[in-house]
Amino acid sequence: MQQPPFRFFDDIATREIAPGFFSKLVHTPNNTINFITVKAGCSVPLHQHIHRQSSFVIEGEFEMTVAGETRILTPSSFVVIEPDTIHGGTAVTDCKLIDIFDPVREDYKKLTEQ
Amino acid sequence: MQQPPFRFFDDIATREIAPGFFSKLVHTPNNTINFITVKAGCSVPLHQHIHRQSSFVIEGEFEMTVAGETRILTPSSFVVIEPDTIHGGTAVTDCKLIDIFDPVREDYKKLTEQ
Repeated sequence: MQQPPFRFFDDIATREIAPGFFSKLVHTPNNTINFITVKAGCSVPLHQHIHRQSSFVIEGEFEMTVAGETRILTPSSFVVIEPDTIHGGTAVTDCKLIDIFDPVREDYKKLTEQ
Repeated sequence: MQQPPFRFFDDIATREIAPGFFSKLVHTPNNTINFITVKAGCSVPLHQHIHRQSSFVIEGEFEMTVAGETRILTPSSFVVIEPDTIHGGTAVTDCKLIDIFDPVREDYKKLTEQ
């Protein structure tokens, strides 16, 4: 059933997608949008997936490694990670992040439906 | 030519997409992501397009009308507007917004390339 257009983050369960990474997941037919809060020092190890991922830092600093290159992301910068590209990262400070995936993260969708 | 993964908002020209709506546009193969700053009182009139649009308020309050229903969006709420749905809105306060479109806004892409 199609969801109503207007929605509240409080109605979305918070999921700990990786240790210390607390997510609110929004799924549309073609995208998963991941609103993340993470504490300084928490990491996602290097991994890859079929989804393109665009990552934006709303607050804080996040060290990201993509295809062997490491940079500190801040609200003035961002990264677009093409499908099947090895990437990972560490929160330098407490952060708020937004990751936009295409296609939909069916693996995350299953989590949400549990 | 494919762009590098790591990018800076300062390298993206700011476009006034609607009066008072100042945009930095990020295009991926399947999405356009629009980072908007808007002053209180500025409006986008009712319109529609083939693109699904998910709208998030990062700072401020934005009054949105979608298919005849009007709500005030804040950072605790959001809207997913299905394709071809009539919508428009007004900034109640100064706002920072993120609109995510699929598919790509080819009309905006042409603006960016000018």
